[in-house]
Amino acid sequence: MRIAELSRRTGVPVPTIKYYLREGLLPPGERTSPNQARYDESHVHRVRLVRALVEVGGLSIAATREVVDVMHADERTPLESIGKVHFAVQRGGSSDSPAVDELIDRRGWRVRPTNPARAALADVLTTVERLGHPDMHGLIDTYADAAETLADAEIAALTEDAGVEDMAESVVVLSVLGTALLSALRGLAQESAAGERFS
Amino acid sequence: MRIAELSRRTGVPVPTIKYYLREGLLPPGERTSPNQARYDESHVHRVRLVRALVEVGGLSIAATREVVDVMHADERTPLESIGKVHFAVQRGGSSDSPAVDELIDRRGWRVRPTNPARAALADVLTTVERLGHPDMHGLIDTYADAAETLADAEIAALTEDAGVEDMAESVVVLSVLGTALLSALRGLAQESAAGERFS
Repeated sequence: MRIAELSRRTGVPVPTIKYYLREGLLPPGERTSPNQARYDESHVHRVRLVRALVEVGGLSIAATREVVDVMHADERTPLESIGKVHFAVQRGGSSDSPAVDELIDRRGWRVRPTNPARAALADVLTTVERLGHPDMHGLIDTYADAAETLADAEIAALTEDAGVEDMAESVVVLSVLGTALLSALRGLAQESAAGERFS
Repeated sequence: MRIAELSRRTGVPVPTIKYYLREGLLPPGERTSPNQARYDESHVHRVRLVRALVEVGGLSIAATREVVDVMHADERTPLESIGKVHFAVQRGGSSDSPAVDELIDRRGWRVRPTNPARAALADVLTTVERLGHPDMHGLIDTYADAAETLADAEIAALTEDAGVEDMAESVVVLSVLGTALLSALRGLAQESAAGERFS
């Protein structure tokens, strides 16, 4: 199909598709003349995925490129893919902290020293401390319980997924859209809980 | 104190503080000469809060301004503050959906039609559907359970908080930093769960 058809199928405007092509988020089509190229179903799927990561997941173009690159690396094990997606998605934190090590120990989690979520967690804890909202510390184990329950369910869902080929994309979808899903559900549940408490 | 001292106290560079002032994220200091102003402890606190929202929470400058404006409106009830923060923080979705209404009904949540998390959730559900990862649908109630548990704990923590003055800021911190906290913990728990499953 031509680019106009690709646009119609995905609902993504032609200039945006050209931008994805320039940024390397979408592999080039098969060139049929100096000014035209032909695209196939794999392009339809990829445009939808990139759109989802950028629009719904809120990823930057750079992070989207890294995530998409993860999916190309066929040799990777699921565990490696998960690690790579986290690197691409997590905002890099500045430093590690004993409080993070202590929490990981207490939960019995096995986490590599290179996991960027360590530094991200250290940043959040330092910030909460500095702002003087100690009430949040009492919530940390509630959050950690939730994170653990979700992670177990997510990893179980991954393994039930059919092909190895799908695995890397499933990791991406679960990590990025899972965050958006949880955020939306929290927004609903918080209003409901606040309504009960305050009105 | 002068702006250099404000910078030293908060660890935020002077040009960044000037940017916050220009963007209305920080109230102006008391002018002492045409080129100088004096700042106080409330500025130290505000700079730290803005820094936290932008750097750790990942909010845009526009969203940060809206969130900070919420905190100025003293007349608001906690419930109104929570609603306003959600409006500022949630990425606006395009449309509502019967699937969202059905889920809210099923959970017994009471959520206003204007809550932007409705449209955000509709976006995520549509995207997951379109990408063809039906395995995620089986996870939705696991996510909703987690969201409900967290919301109850967060709203309970809010009401235990001392002053009414602190309430609006606590809402902001819990909503924005709570998301960052949960995201980091998921990043750790996922690696741990994946390690157990795959290695």
